[in-house]
Amino acid sequence: MVKRVAIIGSGNWGSAIARNIGYSTLQHKDTFVSEVKMWVYEEIINGEKLSEIINSRHENIKYLPGKKLPENIVAVTDLVETCKDADYLIFVVPHQFVTGLCNQLKGKIKLTAQGVSMIKGLALNDGSKNGIHLITDEIKSILNIRCSVLMGANLAHEVAEDQFCEATIGYNGSDIEEEIVLKKLFHRDSFRITVVKDANTVELCGALKNVVAVAAGISDGLGYGDNTKAAIIRLGLMEITKFVEKFFPPSNLRTFFQSCGVADLVTTCYGGRNRKLGMAFAKSDKDIKTLEKEVLNGQSAQGVCTAEEVATMLKNTNSQNEFPLFMGVDKVCRREIKPEDLIEHLKNHPEHD
Amino acid sequence: MVKRVAIIGSGNWGSAIARNIGYSTLQHKDTFVSEVKMWVYEEIINGEKLSEIINSRHENIKYLPGKKLPENIVAVTDLVETCKDADYLIFVVPHQFVTGLCNQLKGKIKLTAQGVSMIKGLALNDGSKNGIHLITDEIKSILNIRCSVLMGANLAHEVAEDQFCEATIGYNGSDIEEEIVLKKLFHRDSFRITVVKDANTVELCGALKNVVAVAAGISDGLGYGDNTKAAIIRLGLMEITKFVEKFFPPSNLRTFFQSCGVADLVTTCYGGRNRKLGMAFAKSDKDIKTLEKEVLNGQSAQGVCTAEEVATMLKNTNSQNEFPLFMGVDKVCRREIKPEDLIEHLKNHPEHD
Repeated sequence: MVKRVAIIGSGNWGSAIARNIGYSTLQHKDTFVSEVKMWVYEEIINGEKLSEIINSRHENIKYLPGKKLPENIVAVTDLVETCKDADYLIFVVPHQFVTGLCNQLKGKIKLTAQGVSMIKGLALNDGSKNGIHLITDEIKSILNIRCSVLMGANLAHEVAEDQFCEATIGYNGSDIEEEIVLKKLFHRDSFRITVVKDANTVELCGALKNVVAVAAGISDGLGYGDNTKAAIIRLGLMEITKFVEKFFPPSNLRTFFQSCGVADLVTTCYGGRNRKLGMAFAKSDKDIKTLEKEVLNGQSAQGVCTAEEVATMLKNTNSQNEFPLFMGVDKVCRREIKPEDLIEHLKNHPEHD
Repeated sequence: MVKRVAIIGSGNWGSAIARNIGYSTLQHKDTFVSEVKMWVYEEIINGEKLSEIINSRHENIKYLPGKKLPENIVAVTDLVETCKDADYLIFVVPHQFVTGLCNQLKGKIKLTAQGVSMIKGLALNDGSKNGIHLITDEIKSILNIRCSVLMGANLAHEVAEDQFCEATIGYNGSDIEEEIVLKKLFHRDSFRITVVKDANTVELCGALKNVVAVAAGISDGLGYGDNTKAAIIRLGLMEITKFVEKFFPPSNLRTFFQSCGVADLVTTCYGGRNRKLGMAFAKSDKDIKTLEKEVLNGQSAQGVCTAEEVATMLKNTNSQNEFPLFMGVDKVCRREIKPEDLIEHLKNHPEHD
């Protein structure tokens, strides 16, 4: 049976991956239905509906201008219509929308459907457990489906230009056929997939690296050089590793060597929104909201809220001292400590004992 | 018994670490003799002897201008005089000089002396084994002493400015007191040391990362973006790991997370000579020697000869196919393949199977 794929989301990253998925489904007609519905949150662009622009001109002129989408990608504004007969639901929306979207889909999708989350964030519990859980757990629990993740060093516009890159799929199932299908859906000549059976680690790498990127930006903003930044990236990686091993075991150390791990971390710490915000923050005394408006055109930097969520969990479990970088980023973002103090705290990192 | 330290080398990195060692020995007078002799290869700078400049003005005006050395660092031009009564011999010279210097010292040092190598390179066998061995093995076999290594993300001029950074000591001994002394010699408020008992891995990380940096430079020179560079850094890290595990076991995976591993790799791939040379190489059709003159003021880029040494070993052991990045860098540097072909080869890396 050929599988039907639906994409939930059509922003920058959603449109870039839709391009890849469109080509993959065309290439593997024995495995996938070629038509891929993509849920679009309707917007009016210069008097035209975004969904109609995509379906007539095959280009998302707002979020991925200049890049043609294959014609088998069909924009749909009705979420249930997009997803109801899909075998694969690809989630690629800002993380604050996941719960609402899943609630709309509840009971209206195939029982055998499975999800793939491309969302780099965490979900905050409403006081119930230690503080946080995974976005995929949110999806799984509301929709009662399996859910894999895809993470990696994947700046959307470079993916859309078919520049060579890698990504990691975290798949915890035991069905080898299913694993092959999943890889086939994303793997292309210039977009190379490795599948690992360590989905929690893959997902957490994607979320936590944004906190480290804020710290790297702070270091850049303070005028520190390459050595200090390297130390911050490495200490950040050690905290990511420790956090996953402590709160979401079991975890395979080799997963941190995948694209979702070191590669995404490095890319984000040298480019990306979170680094940019950290840098601006260290150079001024403005608050996060103001700087998001000024330097990110109002987009939010995920790392700041992820740091807050992580700090909550660390406080609840009395683990603050083990994670001076994570805690420091949260404190700096609240202006409880000076940016310079973050660097001072790292000089006494437990890693050096 | 207080220990006497000698530094063999007084270039950029040698002078920067001499500054740190000078302060550490002053700080820990119960552990070290404050006077530290530093062997200087004599040069005439504007009519004055470099050794005399260092001893009168306490500054290496040629290799680390503008940074004062503590007065307990004493420049000595006689190698045996520098080392004969030392308990610690710190090797910080270009790797091609190691054999000659060790031969001069043979039989003229304390029997209980031990070495610390800060040299990031490999030694080529004269046809005997598979191709390469470690610099520390060279030191050990000629001088019949133990030898640790210190590696990390340590650009010399930033270390000399006391910017916060980390380094890794690889120490394979079992004497905990000795380990503490070794750490004390280097550890400072802004230069944080972690000691690991996996010296071969630490040393190999320091040498092999230069090959990856040439590849990163090639990618930059070809105009590829962050995703591609991240993939190259990651695939390079995977090849470093595999190389160490295959040819120099046992190796602890956690060592690659130390400053000698990911941190030094990242720093070198974003800055540093080897990246610079790779970039220039991809943009022109000149040969390595010419480019070393033009873009590195005649300094050599270690990564090119390390790639050649590694390629020799891989050919001798019929392992070429497992290391397409290492092999590719060597072939590009010989102009056997085009720079673009390196990226094409990486698209079919065994990591993606």
